[in-house]
Amino acid sequence: MSGTEAAGPLSKDVLLVFLPGAEDTEWTGRIAKRHPGLEIIWFNAFKPGNEFTRPEEFDQEMWHRVTILATYLPPPAHLVPKVRYIQLISAGADKWPSHPKYQDERVLFCTANGAHAPQIAEWVIGTWLSHGHKFQRYASLMETGKWEQSFDVRVQDSPGLRMGILGYGAIGRQCARLGSAMGLEVYAYTRNERTTPESKKDDSYCVPGTGDQDGLLPAKWFHGPTKESVNDFLAQDLDLLVISLPLTPETQQIISEEQFEILSKKKTFVSNIGRGGHINQEALIKALETGQIRGAALDVTDPEPLPSDHPLWKAPNLLITPHISWKSLSFFSRLLAIIEANLENLATDKPLINVINRKLHY
Amino acid sequence: MSGTEAAGPLSKDVLLVFLPGAEDTEWTGRIAKRHPGLEIIWFNAFKPGNEFTRPEEFDQEMWHRVTILATYLPPPAHLVPKVRYIQLISAGADKWPSHPKYQDERVLFCTANGAHAPQIAEWVIGTWLSHGHKFQRYASLMETGKWEQSFDVRVQDSPGLRMGILGYGAIGRQCARLGSAMGLEVYAYTRNERTTPESKKDDSYCVPGTGDQDGLLPAKWFHGPTKESVNDFLAQDLDLLVISLPLTPETQQIISEEQFEILSKKKTFVSNIGRGGHINQEALIKALETGQIRGAALDVTDPEPLPSDHPLWKAPNLLITPHISWKSLSFFSRLLAIIEANLENLATDKPLINVINRKLHY
Repeated sequence: MSGTEAAGPLSKDVLLVFLPGAEDTEWTGRIAKRHPGLEIIWFNAFKPGNEFTRPEEFDQEMWHRVTILATYLPPPAHLVPKVRYIQLISAGADKWPSHPKYQDERVLFCTANGAHAPQIAEWVIGTWLSHGHKFQRYASLMETGKWEQSFDVRVQDSPGLRMGILGYGAIGRQCARLGSAMGLEVYAYTRNERTTPESKKDDSYCVPGTGDQDGLLPAKWFHGPTKESVNDFLAQDLDLLVISLPLTPETQQIISEEQFEILSKKKTFVSNIGRGGHINQEALIKALETGQIRGAALDVTDPEPLPSDHPLWKAPNLLITPHISWKSLSFFSRLLAIIEANLENLATDKPLINVINRKLHY
Repeated sequence: MSGTEAAGPLSKDVLLVFLPGAEDTEWTGRIAKRHPGLEIIWFNAFKPGNEFTRPEEFDQEMWHRVTILATYLPPPAHLVPKVRYIQLISAGADKWPSHPKYQDERVLFCTANGAHAPQIAEWVIGTWLSHGHKFQRYASLMETGKWEQSFDVRVQDSPGLRMGILGYGAIGRQCARLGSAMGLEVYAYTRNERTTPESKKDDSYCVPGTGDQDGLLPAKWFHGPTKESVNDFLAQDLDLLVISLPLTPETQQIISEEQFEILSKKKTFVSNIGRGGHINQEALIKALETGQIRGAALDVTDPEPLPSDHPLWKAPNLLITPHISWKSLSFFSRLLAIIEANLENLATDKPLINVINRKLHY
């Protein structure tokens, strides 16, 4: 700290950015200027060969001083005795529930909610369109130079169809915005009732110009923690079902044999960008093989990686991608925008954004 | 005409629906009731084997009585001496310019503008997302059950990127709506200047809840009939270029070597749903092979069908589909909505919608 600068409210803090990415010096410069006295350590946790540096591999003395941490992997609790705010890079906290620091309510935990929404919504709409407009079929025909303009190809575009969004958070809301622009009618489902304008709002980070922060897009909004409430939602003649829930004991295998039976009426296309555990995969394979549903797209499976001999790979009308829908060259700049906003909130004693609900883990 | 009904203003007309599709009896019933005395003939011009019945194959006596015609193939002029309104099923009139009835300004010609917009915009956005999010790559990896979560895969989502729309008609406007929802900045180009709110409007048929009829979405609007004006537009750092122009002598090969050079600065992704003649295909192949552009999607080629040994099939980062982007199970109901609106306009002496500009052919 130079003599000309007053010590800021974060002057006793040490921020460790422990993420797989090179330092954004424009960002660290701006943060340093805004928060005089804040010590900033940026460690690029990316190792060649698609691996992360484990927290234990990083300097112990350094760890002990950290009060603010942005990380993908949880460090052992003894390494971070002073930490007071932990910024995750995921939308859910499924790596953390048993962690002592997570169980300590004094430590603030924030998700990266909203930083994944644009790219994941693009993945959802892109896979829906790719299936509906049969791009894969045409890509295959290109290999033999075959111009096949069959009148039998039936394409149904979206106006007038219905999209159900199971879990109406930041990601679900951007899916709604895109679907709505295409003419899809949007039905939303949330665990808790959202009847007042205030309760319909989502206060997580939102990329400007995207999403549905005020919750105005759904034509109907369903709720309830029971299986019956979920089944009632699934029975709403959905053409496209998007699973954008956090994985919790309540949402484990939320889509199983019984639910595929319900979805078979409309042959709903099922898109899962939540977690593999949301779907009973045996039931999914059966639903695809018997034509109960028209198709599916999965960015998540159980387990991950999916073993190469797993029968899911061979199910018809299915696209699997290896948990990559969150990827975007803009992801880190959005994550840094969340951290920047929250440092500002810490410094000015305001509530943080994206604070996790320690009971629901999202 | 029954004795209880008054003869309507169209009671001297004979409507022939000469299209590849079975009669929509709900529609014909409604039209018959609304326009007493109008004779309605519906001929399903679809023949098994993906062929159309040629107009010459249909009853000559019948043809001679037709005053209102909906058709895909132009009938010889001598077959339709009394025709006064011809409804096309395409957005452009490139099959018609030399036809005597087209040259007769007293015959009203209307396009199917707007009936193709939702599905073609879905095709444009779907192929853009499919390329950007590398769905084809993951589909290939599925064949061997390979879970490849590479950190090297670079995906750029749309917020903050720029989309240029060359030809801002019904299709371009729905592309703008979808792009805008994804966070793309929209730049529009039209041949004529559109500075007043009135001039920005598009009065063609529009599926409710879609499009941009008032022309409010473009952040910037370019115009001009010269090559220089087009080049100026192409130089605007576009990430995605959509060609949604009619094919006219002015727009033949509007994208050629010089234009790919301009687009190489941003490696613009090029999407063509206009006509194959809009692009110089040799220049396109070179642009793809040398990486001047990041990729392309074509629903139209020159010629069509594209011969199986044509080098375009083998160009990298390209998806070709066989002129099918207009297809939708909803297409016919939209076309019928246009005809219904125009019969109403004829009966009430109002201007028709989607009337073609006989100089510009769209």
